[in-house]
Amino acid sequence: MTRITVWNEHVHERRDASVARLYPSGMHGAIAGGIRRELAEAAEVRTATLDEPEHGLSAEVLAKTDVLTWWGHAAHDQVADAVVERIHARVLEGMGIVILHSGHYSKIFKRLMGTSCALRWRSDPGGERELVWTVNPGHPIAAGVPHPIVIPHQEMYGEYFDIPPPEALVFISSFAGGEVFRSGCCYTRGAGRLFYFGPGDQEFPVYHQPEVQRVIANAVGWCAGGARGNDLPSDRGQSPSTKRDWYMQPA
Amino acid sequence: MTRITVWNEHVHERRDASVARLYPSGMHGAIAGGIRRELAEAAEVRTATLDEPEHGLSAEVLAKTDVLTWWGHAAHDQVADAVVERIHARVLEGMGIVILHSGHYSKIFKRLMGTSCALRWRSDPGGERELVWTVNPGHPIAAGVPHPIVIPHQEMYGEYFDIPPPEALVFISSFAGGEVFRSGCCYTRGAGRLFYFGPGDQEFPVYHQPEVQRVIANAVGWCAGGARGNDLPSDRGQSPSTKRDWYMQPA
Amino acid sequence: MTRITVWNEHVHERRDASVARLYPSGMHGAIAGGIRRELAEAAEVRTATLDEPEHGLSAEVLAKTDVLTWWGHAAHDQVADAVVERIHARVLEGMGIVILHSGHYSKIFKRLMGTSCALRWRSDPGGERELVWTVNPGHPIAAGVPHPIVIPHQEMYGEYFDIPPPEALVFISSFAGGEVFRSGCCYTRGAGRLFYFGPGDQEFPVYHQPEVQRVIANAVGWCAGGARGNDLPSDRGQSPSTKRDWYMQPA
Amino acid sequence: MTRITVWNEHVHERRDASVARLYPSGMHGAIAGGIRRELAEAAEVRTATLDEPEHGLSAEVLAKTDVLTWWGHAAHDQVADAVVERIHARVLEGMGIVILHSGHYSKIFKRLMGTSCALRWRSDPGGERELVWTVNPGHPIAAGVPHPIVIPHQEMYGEYFDIPPPEALVFISSFAGGEVFRSGCCYTRGAGRLFYFGPGDQEFPVYHQPEVQRVIANAVGWCAGGARGNDLPSDRGQSPSTKRDWYMQPA
Repeated sequence: MTRITVWNEHVHERRDASVARLYPSGMHGAIAGGIRRELAEAAEVRTATLDEPEHGLSAEVLAKTDVLTWWGHAAHDQVADAVVERIHARVLEGMGIVILHSGHYSKIFKRLMGTSCALRWRSDPGGERELVWTVNPGHPIAAGVPHPIVIPHQEMYGEYFDIPPPEALVFISSFAGGEVFRSGCCYTRGAGRLFYFGPGDQEFPVYHQPEVQRVIANAVGWCAGGARGNDLPSDRGQSPSTKRDWYMQPA
Repeated sequence: MTRITVWNEHVHERRDASVARLYPSGMHGAIAGGIRRELAEAAEVRTATLDEPEHGLSAEVLAKTDVLTWWGHAAHDQVADAVVERIHARVLEGMGIVILHSGHYSKIFKRLMGTSCALRWRSDPGGERELVWTVNPGHPIAAGVPHPIVIPHQEMYGEYFDIPPPEALVFISSFAGGEVFRSGCCYTRGAGRLFYFGPGDQEFPVYHQPEVQRVIANAVGWCAGGARGNDLPSDRGQSPSTKRDWYMQPA
Repeated sequence: MTRITVWNEHVHERRDASVARLYPSGMHGAIAGGIRRELAEAAEVRTATLDEPEHGLSAEVLAKTDVLTWWGHAAHDQVADAVVERIHARVLEGMGIVILHSGHYSKIFKRLMGTSCALRWRSDPGGERELVWTVNPGHPIAAGVPHPIVIPHQEMYGEYFDIPPPEALVFISSFAGGEVFRSGCCYTRGAGRLFYFGPGDQEFPVYHQPEVQRVIANAVGWCAGGARGNDLPSDRGQSPSTKRDWYMQPA
Repeated sequence: MTRITVWNEHVHERRDASVARLYPSGMHGAIAGGIRRELAEAAEVRTATLDEPEHGLSAEVLAKTDVLTWWGHAAHDQVADAVVERIHARVLEGMGIVILHSGHYSKIFKRLMGTSCALRWRSDPGGERELVWTVNPGHPIAAGVPHPIVIPHQEMYGEYFDIPPPEALVFISSFAGGEVFRSGCCYTRGAGRLFYFGPGDQEFPVYHQPEVQRVIANAVGWCAGGARGNDLPSDRGQSPSTKRDWYMQPA
């Protein structure tokens, strides 16, 4: 059983009629619904949003979260630094995290990447076609995913995307203008796993598309595969200077 | 359900009394037993050895194998090239493969790596202590593994080990002489996954050690996580020159 | 001073009038010319072709080659296995190698990669526009390269490209049809370095384009940066069993 | 000509007589001296320390620095956040950075890594033997380096070292106690390059050892190989929505 918290800043849906029409239950509703359908009994999904106390991400909630998904765009600055540090610590302990689309500029993603996370973009009112190509067919996140995924209308995100080179690159997208984008990127941070996924904009119904939901569910599964029972994190620190072979002693 | 074939050249056990005493059911017996105990109902384990027809690795067997484990040492040259090519093709299609210890010099490992796979070694009659340290605590292959694994008696394998840089490095070993060795290495080849694991010599009871069995079972699980249902391999080749947007056509 | 051997099968130029017109001195002539212009005094460039004895790649020539560039297409099978093994051994010793375009199906590339090296392609008579985007701006191979390089007419090469995940990915291309391709890929094999570069087809004047020449010259420079004076390759093999601290002994 | 700034907090040398005896010109003196000897005319080396205004790292100094080396231990917290952000921005623009030993806990290293950078250590009064093994013999940082480097007396630094998996791993160390440590790690951040090197403690004369000086000089050379003239960093941001093929327009 994987315990998932779907986080959404939930600002556009309440402010912009066009977004509210696309996502009447919020983007978190669509994302959570897709994960539930794909993972069924294997998942326990809750949601959390910016305006809840502690953004719905108290220490208790995070302690019971195996994988956190993150969508934010208009209100990155309103996320409290203390909550960001709490999430960061949990990732290093082994919690997985899936960063979606404009989450590339969130505090937590920049904190985990160590770079500016800037990218090139173009906001065409009608969007443009994005093709998502698999470049790592044996990766679990690509399981059952068409090659390419065709997303009819989407905001262009292009290179250079200022991220550390991914440890595994699963997807590369192209756009109608000819730009390319590393749109499926895997990382390890401490005992935790992170996946960045490019598709998904508040102005288009991308999170209702089954192939996109499949990728997100696969990503949740992959991120949940991190540390389980390994005692490393508590194991760090100074070793006794008098016994070099401390690992040979009975515990 | 993961279908596993445990392959062993099965030469030392029939030739050397010391090895026969350690491994009365063959090294494949010990390895298969460990996987069965760790994965229980999730695994279906068969074994195969060099002197069976086609080394027990017919097209039919490989077609029903999700993960192959490989131990060889004295008879690498006796493995038929046609069988090596068959295994190679199956790995690219998505079959996982776990290469154990002296399998570093097997034809299939060299074929998949593209390098000489040479290493430094020392055969002390009584062996020497190997410590296996985890350097990627969130990797599923390290789940539940002590830090370090202490192997009391083992042959020294040291750097430089002529392999491509691993895509993920899970374990590093040190030996009594002070040498180090990249002893847990992950690779992707086509849609298949490969794990190389250093410990395990015919002269020492390493494959009876529960922590080592745990690592092998974890590795089988990780390698089984490759391509499932993704239609990429059959999807390659020439695209029609008259339709650039072939991916928009109904199938 | 970097000593470079530019290898070309030199078949199309003598067979196809259209290619002869584009490359009157052979494709090797254009490639060598570009390297000479870019590296000037820092380079000593010779060429070699398929129909020379030993394909112009005798042990003597390879011993004096720091970086080999490779273009082949119609005659991969005519390259002698013994020459392939000789090149392979030199790469592991530290010689750099730059594989160009259709060289993806050469024996030496497949030997070094361990995969099928298959890809998707489309041969439109007039070609189509390729855009080459930099995704690793600090890599020396990208130095001074426009973002993107625009290649007006080129054959489409697309994913899935069956190669091991590159150790560093420098360029990603898109094509008029919307396909993407990992077109600038770095690898280490033994003490040698390899760079694969996608652009360049016999039917189009790609190797006369200054930006493409710049990339190839940069790649030669990067590949030349491999092993220099490190005594590792001769250092492998069995260590004396009686002295564990052999590295403390006077040489 | 590579312009290098050698930074040292310069606290231990003024506080502890044992350190002052080992490093009468400060650790920065020994480090700078080694780089000067190894790189000779190719390098212009200056030094900077914590108690200078802006820690000797004004915007002017950084603008003229191609590679910064960093040693700190007792006073990480006294480094001003504004200076850390300035260094961070310069790295993303293309400045190289070499982090030495206890610099693993510096603000700038943690900022660039995104992890805790914790490790295991043991402070034996007399230190213990460290062996530094090369695992990437073709990497320029290993050029001319013995295998292994024997450091007679050094503080133990061991795994788990909480860093992102290195993009290239050049060295692995072992210690008298049997611990291992990833002691030579390469990263890319934006257009800049980073190398972490483990050896070097204030209590031992490690930075006077010629092999260690060679590694540091090689690392400076590698880090200097980042972005030169590529126009990417200024090239990011929003693209005009009305012209999808902006890259085809005259500049």
